[in-house]
Amino acid sequence: MLLSVWAPRAEATVEVLVAGGRVPLLHSERGRWWADIPELMAGADYALSIDGGPPRPDPRSAHQPAGVDGMSRIVDHEAFEWTDTRWGGLDLGRSVLYELHVGTFSGAGTFRGVIDHMDHLVSLGVDAIELMPVVEFSGVRGWGYDCVDLWAPHSAYGGPDGLKDLVDACHSRGLGVVVDVVYNHLGPAGNFLADFGPYFDDRHHTNWGQGINVDGPGSDEVRAFIVDNALMWLRDYHVDGLRLDAVHAIVDESATHILEQMSVAVQRLSAARGVPLRLIAESDLNAPRFVRSPREGGYGLAASWADEWHHALHAVLTGESDGYYSDFGSLEQLAKALQQAWVYDGEYSPHRDRVHGRSPAGLSGEQFLVCAQNHDQIGNRAGGERLTALTSPGRVKIAATLLLTSPFVPLLFQGEEWAASTPFQYFTDHQDPALGRAVSEGRRNEFAYFGWRPEDVPDPQDAATFERSRLRWDDLSQSHHSDMLAWYRALIALRRNHPHLGCAELDDLTVDYDADQQWLIVQRTAAGLSVAINLGVDARVLRLKGDVLLSSAPVLEKLGDGLIVLPADSVVIVSW
Amino acid sequence: MLLSVWAPRAEATVEVLVAGGRVPLLHSERGRWWADIPELMAGADYALSIDGGPPRPDPRSAHQPAGVDGMSRIVDHEAFEWTDTRWGGLDLGRSVLYELHVGTFSGAGTFRGVIDHMDHLVSLGVDAIELMPVVEFSGVRGWGYDCVDLWAPHSAYGGPDGLKDLVDACHSRGLGVVVDVVYNHLGPAGNFLADFGPYFDDRHHTNWGQGINVDGPGSDEVRAFIVDNALMWLRDYHVDGLRLDAVHAIVDESATHILEQMSVAVQRLSAARGVPLRLIAESDLNAPRFVRSPREGGYGLAASWADEWHHALHAVLTGESDGYYSDFGSLEQLAKALQQAWVYDGEYSPHRDRVHGRSPAGLSGEQFLVCAQNHDQIGNRAGGERLTALTSPGRVKIAATLLLTSPFVPLLFQGEEWAASTPFQYFTDHQDPALGRAVSEGRRNEFAYFGWRPEDVPDPQDAATFERSRLRWDDLSQSHHSDMLAWYRALIALRRNHPHLGCAELDDLTVDYDADQQWLIVQRTAAGLSVAINLGVDARVLRLKGDVLLSSAPVLEKLGDGLIVLPADSVVIVSW
Repeated sequence: MLLSVWAPRAEATVEVLVAGGRVPLLHSERGRWWADIPELMAGADYALSIDGGPPRPDPRSAHQPAGVDGMSRIVDHEAFEWTDTRWGGLDLGRSVLYELHVGTFSGAGTFRGVIDHMDHLVSLGVDAIELMPVVEFSGVRGWGYDCVDLWAPHSAYGGPDGLKDLVDACHSRGLGVVVDVVYNHLGPAGNFLADFGPYFDDRHHTNWGQGINVDGPGSDEVRAFIVDNALMWLRDYHVDGLRLDAVHAIVDESATHILEQMSVAVQRLSAARGVPLRLIAESDLNAPRFVRSPREGGYGLAASWADEWHHALHAVLTGESDGYYSDFGSLEQLAKALQQAWVYDGEYSPHRDRVHGRSPAGLSGEQFLVCAQNHDQIGNRAGGERLTALTSPGRVKIAATLLLTSPFVPLLFQGEEWAASTPFQYFTDHQDPALGRAVSEGRRNEFAYFGWRPEDVPDPQDAATFERSRLRWDDLSQSHHSDMLAWYRALIALRRNHPHLGCAELDDLTVDYDADQQWLIVQRTAAGLSVAINLGVDARVLRLKGDVLLSSAPVLEKLGDGLIVLPADSVVIVSW
Repeated sequence: MLLSVWAPRAEATVEVLVAGGRVPLLHSERGRWWADIPELMAGADYALSIDGGPPRPDPRSAHQPAGVDGMSRIVDHEAFEWTDTRWGGLDLGRSVLYELHVGTFSGAGTFRGVIDHMDHLVSLGVDAIELMPVVEFSGVRGWGYDCVDLWAPHSAYGGPDGLKDLVDACHSRGLGVVVDVVYNHLGPAGNFLADFGPYFDDRHHTNWGQGINVDGPGSDEVRAFIVDNALMWLRDYHVDGLRLDAVHAIVDESATHILEQMSVAVQRLSAARGVPLRLIAESDLNAPRFVRSPREGGYGLAASWADEWHHALHAVLTGESDGYYSDFGSLEQLAKALQQAWVYDGEYSPHRDRVHGRSPAGLSGEQFLVCAQNHDQIGNRAGGERLTALTSPGRVKIAATLLLTSPFVPLLFQGEEWAASTPFQYFTDHQDPALGRAVSEGRRNEFAYFGWRPEDVPDPQDAATFERSRLRWDDLSQSHHSDMLAWYRALIALRRNHPHLGCAELDDLTVDYDADQQWLIVQRTAAGLSVAINLGVDARVLRLKGDVLLSSAPVLEKLGDGLIVLPADSVVIVSW
């Protein structure tokens, strides 16, 4: 096989360690090294040595069967026998997404384990799964955002073939697959990219240290590394979309932002494959440029996460006001979120101590992804508590209803649909003891600020923390879990079957509310449907004409004048 | 007067030191402190003390009569008697700009000194002067980019009234005024802003250290500081435009880039005043977003410097290939620059070691400012040599001709028009001896890299370096200087009077050239005019129909077949 490696930092040699020997690569221009090496056939293990240094994984390694410090393995993507020839891609505007973490979703904690629960996903009615990062990171257990081998599906999950099996199985059941990819930083362990070239630089800083070098000297190859990686998932793994982690931490001052370069390349691949491929940004900037078209000066991504929709809802439902929730808490803000996803659209944010965001006018609902719970909002709490652990079942149903009747793309988090009894805590498995200790201690210190006693903060490195976070599918034998599941199923079925209840333009949804009495009514105009919620302590009489489609509690309808009595902490959906 | 100061870093008190006393300010919200202080009348000197600390200038001080470490002085902008009521602003598309440095332009080195030479500027025919930074910096002598009191015209130049007198005088003679303002960093001496608030932060780094905080906590007031400053020049000093220094070093990841915020605010002021005000960016990014309209996702600036036009020309004329000139040197690149200003429009730049820039398609000529010489291109050389010192008078005339027949906005540098005998060297006057030594040493080290002996590099701190850089107006008594001046005058008059020879769309100019024979012919389509240059060692016969309008050397016309003989290092302009 012809092997080509970008290693401008090699001064004299780049060698391939394979089959017990060392094969030198030839230097071509701009730091490229290459050779045609017959021993590098599918399944062969190899490593790279720069200037006679220790063996390192190939930066573009397709498989790291022995982990981040081990040998790379050649994968022949052509060899996989796909059966999904009729799969036509993901229509975001008509989809409900389901975020899952492969390691904790099933007892097996593998790609195969996800396949084993596919009946559940299909009967739930979601349209696609979104996998938290699936590429090789240090250790076995982890959320995945500390990944370092961006081209190699995590061995502990089942490696390349395991992921392909999962995507193929999903497609055969009518489910799409979105994969969460991390291009803004690399994990602290097993990251050898800087030995090869200027992947990182000091000009821009992120929460995780040096920024990725996408606009400095040598950045063409760094950009190609990222863009090619995106294309690889879409092409070699048939995934339907990518969730781009924390794009606000990718600072690119050059004339063409790397995300625009990526979206243009993906559109070209989409056209060639005849299947649309979706790029979805996680961004907290409330900036339209990510989803506007390049013609309008934007980057052309399909959609952007809008966490403020969550925050506005969560703060109202729980009354929490710590950290970023201090920016939220009013029904007025919730109404704004329900209508336009972004609450801060050019207003002063006390938590950020600056004006934040910009009007989303001109964007449409399918360009925003919203959720009532996700891995971050649950797992970044000290105890990893789900919304279910923080508020009443009635309020959880309110959250689900607002989510699944929203004009934006809804996303569920694994187990949310049955009010899972398990938390989702922060867990790691760093092999370097010093790093492991630092992470454990950092976590304790972080939450000491919020008044947590050190001994109460789950230790990320402790395997028990990981185990606690694993879904318990036997929850479903209990009625309050199966009751919640029925509620979610009914909502998803309604969203799917009710005309015009999917994504819509921003002006399709209107909101009426009373901050004193704590009720709120959403109208979805085109769908001809209203959602009323009562967050007050008492039942409320509301004027709400139409037929009740769903209600979370018995609703008293007073005949003749369209008045209903809505109990506290309950929600009703009516159709006019 | 009501004084309001943003000082969120004050923990207990902000006091005004005025008239021998200390007046405490009251704290209002978000770090604002204020009081109505009768003693602060026009002409009063005052300083600010934070938490009982040493006296500091007001960050928005309008005048620092005793320099960057001295007291601030209240200025009543309403009191100045303007006479320029009929001045209607600057039409960039029909203008030639003239960059000057107040300290070296005249013997006096003051704003008044500029007024004294205004006849020269008027008779030269330029439309506006562009002043290198005019606000207070440490010491008396300096280029001005190390300025720190961004609201206070440099005292050594004549302070606020001196600048107003200059602007008023310019307007009365039909000249516009553009001021160079520096918002990307502050100078190293006399910079007390960080005592007051988070003006700088560590997330972004520039060549000059910490970046300006325009998108982090507290940035609203930093942005207001900058935007209000821009408006102040346009409103209180009647300047017609601002040259925004090195905007590529202002990193703003927020939803609305500060330059867009600025351009929107300036447009509002323009509308209110009924006079257009121009924002011109210095940017080396070759990115259309700076000049595209906000509707197109851009920042809405009027124009951007395009230094590559200079580099392409300079490298061809001089054969130099050091530093960034290594990216240039071919007639092909010169032809591209002449047509579209940007040479690197998405191509790999060896000097930057990355792909650089983006196509300027869709932009128009008046959105680019070009020059054959400017303070940077001259002064950033070890010896500060003008183009005149590097090549033949014939080639200098070629440069002038290409510049003044270009479809972009031409800018001259003081003395260029007479091939001034004086260099323009890098000079400083840092009052802190350690800083002064560091700057001198840094300069020597920088040029050691290019083979300069330390003793040959002019010492920036030496007053003689400054004096050497002062224009010698008595140059004009010598014929080779007056001859060059006549050439520039003729070209400027031609640009002004010849129909359609000003700025134009990018497709108005076509270029034909022969890289072997080293000739090049520019056609300005709408103007019906050709410019032919011969950079070869021998005279060339060129086919060039039309009437000769100007030629830098005797041109032999062969009758009947449109052939002319163009001597080496010469240029001719013909009209068809």
